[in-house]
Parts: sequence; structure tokens; C-alpha cells
Amino acid sequence: MGIIVQKFGGSSVADVEKIKNVARRVVATKLAGHSVVVVVSALGDTTDELVALARQISLTPPEREMDMLLATGEQISVALLAMAIHAMGHEAISFTGYQIGILTDDSHTKARIVDVRPERIMCELERGCIVVVAGFQGVTVNNDITTLGRGGSDTTAVAIAAALGAEKCEIYTDVEGVFTADPRIVPEALLVPEITYEEMLEMAATGAKVLQLRSVEYGRNHGVVIHVKSSFKDGAGTVVKEEDEGMERPIISGVTRDSSEGKITIFGVPDRPGIAAKVFRPLAAANINMDMIVQNVSTEGLTDISFTLSLDDLPTAESVIKDIVEELGAKGYNTDTNIAKVSIIGAGMKSHPGVAAEMFDVLARNGINIQMISTSPIKIACVIEAGQVETAVRELHDHFQLNEEAITSETL
Amino acid sequence: MGIIVQKFGGSSVADVEKIKNVARRVVATKLAGHSVVVVVSALGDTTDELVALARQISLTPPEREMDMLLATGEQISVALLAMAIHAMGHEAISFTGYQIGILTDDSHTKARIVDVRPERIMCELERGCIVVVAGFQGVTVNNDITTLGRGGSDTTAVAIAAALGAEKCEIYTDVEGVFTADPRIVPEALLVPEITYEEMLEMAATGAKVLQLRSVEYGRNHGVVIHVKSSFKDGAGTVVKEEDEGMERPIISGVTRDSSEGKITIFGVPDRPGIAAKVFRPLAAANINMDMIVQNVSTEGLTDISFTLSLDDLPTAESVIKDIVEELGAKGYNTDTNIAKVSIIGAGMKSHPGVAAEMFDVLARNGINIQMISTSPIKIACVIEAGQVETAVRELHDHFQLNEEAITSETL
Repeated sequence: MGIIVQKFGGSSVADVEKIKNVARRVVATKLAGHSVVVVVSALGDTTDELVALARQISLTPPEREMDMLLATGEQISVALLAMAIHAMGHEAISFTGYQIGILTDDSHTKARIVDVRPERIMCELERGCIVVVAGFQGVTVNNDITTLGRGGSDTTAVAIAAALGAEKCEIYTDVEGVFTADPRIVPEALLVPEITYEEMLEMAATGAKVLQLRSVEYGRNHGVVIHVKSSFKDGAGTVVKEEDEGMERPIISGVTRDSSEGKITIFGVPDRPGIAAKVFRPLAAANINMDMIVQNVSTEGLTDISFTLSLDDLPTAESVIKDIVEELGAKGYNTDTNIAKVSIIGAGMKSHPGVAAEMFDVLARNGINIQMISTSPIKIACVIEAGQVETAVRELHDHFQLNEEAITSETL
Repeated sequence: MGIIVQKFGGSSVADVEKIKNVARRVVATKLAGHSVVVVVSALGDTTDELVALARQISLTPPEREMDMLLATGEQISVALLAMAIHAMGHEAISFTGYQIGILTDDSHTKARIVDVRPERIMCELERGCIVVVAGFQGVTVNNDITTLGRGGSDTTAVAIAAALGAEKCEIYTDVEGVFTADPRIVPEALLVPEITYEEMLEMAATGAKVLQLRSVEYGRNHGVVIHVKSSFKDGAGTVVKEEDEGMERPIISGVTRDSSEGKITIFGVPDRPGIAAKVFRPLAAANINMDMIVQNVSTEGLTDISFTLSLDDLPTAESVIKDIVEELGAKGYNTDTNIAKVSIIGAGMKSHPGVAAEMFDVLARNGINIQMISTSPIKIACVIEAGQVETAVRELHDHFQLNEEAITSETL
């Protein structure tokens, strides 16, 4: 039988008992005849505690040093898990990101994997060892330690699965899989058994926390089948894979929300060619990812430009924007942190026009004003006031009947 | 001006305020015109906490995994110290043992440094950076993380000082330097301003905790002047260096004690050539260091062999000894953990016979029975009952008048 990569998040290894549970699960997979590579995150709240420690020393620590600090969290996890497997009488060996050649670029705190050199892992698997790998971290060509950003352990797991040609990549998490909406907001939300990479990408990009966006991209680009399962309950979970003919294709697969973004608007920008580039190039240079961007129709040669971005990046972005406003001769800017984004996602949307209009109608009927709109062939996202987002999710979930048997292209 | 290596122990970086204090001290050295390399240990009790965590999972964790776990302690320290220096407006960069090429053998948990490749440090020093290095850790040629044993950060500092050709190596610790005896037992003990490598080696080997033995060996072999100072108080400290003509040479430099050892005795061993090798080769193979070894005069072709060793190694040694007893046809063995070692050390002893007799006399007068004796040209060590060791230290310190102006070869 082939290689299975299993990834366990921080809540799955939060204490000694949970680490032993993970060890039992891993050993069971091994005893079933598979070669096993386990990827783990830092124990429970370790990463948050390390960040808090750093903040006591500096509010703006160098990002290289932040990565040096945070990478210790996963190193602790892998050593302890290898010990736990060993205590059960099985061979296990742990590795940091650099030891198994997770090469990244040098964008500290959100590095991208550029290569994986799996020779050492292959060698240990051939010896019959269970290999335990630190998620979330890599190393640059200069031997500097990098981290992949929150949720980066998912990407580590998928990248290793790709490099090893693994049979599958199982992501164990504290939820049972991908749901039609967050069950904390919509208790009647249903588990989605299968979903395409594209839908999963849109879900991750619009607030679903189940998988890190980059891990899904990596899986799509390298054809890695990702299986999301619960660490704590048995269950079918959700399989993320290529769209195929036999796959059930609901119009709408899910409703997501995201309250982690803020909005910046620049007013009275002289409307000349190249103006957008002048605004966004310095932001990109500061390694800030914009999400939605809207430019108003020009009035008297002036226009307004709005965009959303992670609240974490807001302070940096604001300092960049101040200079830009002056340089462009714009009238001013403001920031708004009281926003949220609600989105509906579905591969079947491509062949069913009119879904957007329905969504806008549902929001209007509930007195919810739409501030920005962004669409893709399989997604419609609206920025609304933060306080209204749970109502929006519930009403949309209800309107598109996601709590009932999936509405497919055939049944509609 | 040249390069200064400064090493700070765990108690010097026990919390955020102390880390900031270390940063201030390091920056002051930099501002005085030196190139500075700082070596730090893990924060306060971090190492003990990690060991306790591992013990909850396994009482016999693989040593490779133990090293993987423990190495995180220093990695946290270096990242935080680099941040603290940066927050003061100075460039700083942190490195793990592997990043700056501290190559060791593969004796996990007590590895020996075999090479240091200081290219990356030199490069950063030339850029004007303060370089912060994780003590206690290294890497094998296979890229596996190793640790150097308790106190190993001292050795890291001395090894880096040697590799860089540093002007000096300052070891900052929670005591003010080397004393004629442990001031907690002998309050009138005096600070020793200068001491030879040989004396310091004997002191470290007989229980003085100020410097790790291997760091002194490394310093002697590479001619690195080691300056022991207090992290918390200003003071002259103790300089450890080559014996030179102008150096004051007291008969006795200090009295030490060591309660960290146990004793194993094998009874009724057939007294044949090669018997000692048969006993000690398997122990050496198990990476156990014996301290004192005594073989009794043979009676009726049978002899007894006793040796002392670290209490930590006792369980492993016992399992080895069981097989040896059977193999040799010896009568049996016993272990004794209720022992301690008291030693007097002094370079001047070489030219003054009779010191040993005086020591035995002092112990006898105080009703202290001597179980084992070991001597070197500059040391006499006696194994006694554990409960009598503090009395022994006080009486010897008093008898050799170590609380008065140093007794030198000239004044005696």
C-alpha cells in the first residue's frame, strides 16, 4: 500500500493525552499497512503565547526573528509525538521544516513553498519509520527559518503529499468537515461530502476556516486529493478533489462569512490612466494582499477607490496610503473596520444566471445594505455592515435551501 | 577593537525584563566599539519544563527526540533577545546551532563539538550586526539536532570565541565568579580573581557549578581566556587562563563538593588480567562516564571493584552491571546513592607534599570516614557519607585558611 500523509492541527495536540490519541491513530494507519507521514501544528495555544511574549518585548519585532520564535512551537510538537509513538513500540523520527527540505521564498511570516526535497523522508519511510514533520515552517536558500502564515501546516501536509506522490492527504481538524454554513450560526447546516478545488478555494478565500487557501491551491496544482476529517469523531468528512462527471453539483455549496477584514477608501483621486497601479504597487511592495477592489465611476475627473484587506495589515497599509494620498493629490482617505463579507459559493452557479440577483434580493428584504460586490464564475461576495453578517448567512442558507437534500443541476 | 563573545545563562534571561537588561549590556559593549556575539541559554526553567513534559509521555524517550525538544528552549531565547536589541535601535540577528555550523558528533544529549564554521557569523559581524547564538545545541553531519549536555552553552561560547579568534569570552552567570568554596555553605569564602585552566578543570570535575567542564577543556585547548562575571552585579569576576609566571599560586585554590554521584561496587570478582576492561568497556559503550574507580587488593584470588558515576546514569549502569556480574562469575554487586565527594584543588599542591595527609587528618578529626580516594597532581578528592559533606567543606576551608588572604607559595 502507498503513503498516507496525516495532518493534525493545534487543538488535536493540545495536551499530553491528545498527543497520545494522535499517536494511536497514526500507529493504527501504519498497522493497516501504510507508510505514514504525520504533519503537526504547535500544541494548542503555543503560537498565541509566543506572539504575546514577543509583543512584551517589541510591538514591531523583525519578521525574521518572529519566524525564529514561532517555529519552536511545531518543533516541540513533533518531538513529543515521536516520543509518544516510540512509547507504543513503533519507530518514529521527527523533522523540522529545514531538515526535510521545505524550501520557501524569504517572505518571512507568510512564506511560500518553492520546493520540497523528500529524500530524507523517503529514506526513513523505507526503514519502516513513521515520519513526524513540523508543519507551518520552512527554510530559505540562506538557511533562515520561515513560517507559512496561520494555517500553514495544511500547506506543509499537501506539499509533502505532492512531493512523495502520496495516495492521499488527510487533514484532521476540530470540525467534521466542510459545512454548507458555519454550524455555530446555522445549526441546521449540512456536511458537504465532496467539493471541488475551485469551490474550496472560494470558500477558504471568503472565510471558511477549514483549510488554508494556499493548501487548496497547492492541492489543485499538484492533483493531491485532500480529505478533511474530525480528530475527535469518526465520520466521512469532506473530500476535496478535481471536478469529475459523476460528482454531484449543487448550485450553491455553501454560505461563508469573513469578519477579519477592514476597508480603506481613498477619495477624490484624479482619474488618469495608471492611477490604480500607483495606489496598489506600493501596497504590494509592503507585502499586503488586497481582497476586493472597487473603483467608482468618475465625476468631474475625480474618482474614489475602495479596497478590503486583512485587519492585521491595516496599520501598515494606512502608513503606505498616507504617502500615496499626498503623492496623487487625492482629497483624503478613511478606514472602516466595522465591515464583514458574506458570500455564496457553488460550481453549479456557472450554468445558472440569476443567482446574484436572488442574493441581492434576500439581503435587501432583510434591510441589509451592500457596500461592495465581487463576483467570480462560482462565487458572489458582498461587503456589509459587521453586525448584520449572521442574519445574512442564516437568511441566505435558508433561501437557497442548503439545509435540505442538495439541490443539484438535475433537480432544479 | 576585536570581537567579544558574551554568554548569558538561563537565570540571566529568565523573564522579559531580564532579557531587556541583557540587551542593554550587549548594546553597551557594541557601543564601546567591539564586535559582539552573544550566546544565550534557555529562559529560566524552560529546559526543566520541557523535560517534565517529555516525562509525561515517556520515561525513556529516544535521545534524538529529547534533543529535538530541548533545542527549542534556546531558539526562543535568541529570537526574543534579537527582538529586544532591535527594539533599542540596533541591528541584531539570531541563529540556531545548525545555522552557524556548530558541528557535533552524534552522542545525543551530550554531544561534543567537532567543528565550528563561523562564516555566517563573520559575515553578519562585518555588516555591523550583533549576532545572537543559541547555546547548548549543535547539528550532526546528517542534519540531526544535538545538545551538549547541561551547561553546554558555556562550551558553545568558548568554541565560538575560539573559531572567531575573539579577544575574550565573557561568561555571565548568577554568581560573582569562582569562590574558594560554595558561599552557601561557607559564608566567609573568598572570590578567586585568577585561576589556571587546570585548577578550573578540577573544580568543575569535582562539583563547582560555575563553568561546564568541557568549556574549560575547550578553552585550554584553544587558548581562549574565559572571564566569569555576574549578570546582576558589577565586579571583577574570575579570569580563567594559562598559568603564567606572574600569577599568584595559592597552595589550595578552593574546596568543592559534589552530591550528584552514586557508587556501584562489584564483589568477589575473579582477579585475572583484563578483568577491569571487561567491566568498564560495556559501560563506556553505553556512553556512561565513570568518575573514580577503586580496585581492592586481591584476597584468595577475588577482588572488589568500586566506581562512582552520575546518579542520572545509575539505572542504565545497573542494567549493564547485572550482565557483567553473571558473565564474570562475580559474587554480586550493590549500589549506594548516599555518598558525596569533597575535594581540595590547588596548582601549588604540586610542589607541596603532605597536603593529602593534612586533608585526611581534618576529616578524621571530624569523625568523617573516607570511602574512596582519588588524586591528581593538583587535586585530592574523597568520597564520604552524603550527610557529612557540608561539615567537611567548612572544616577544610577553615583548616587551609581560605577565608584569609591567599596563602601563596611565597608566604607559606
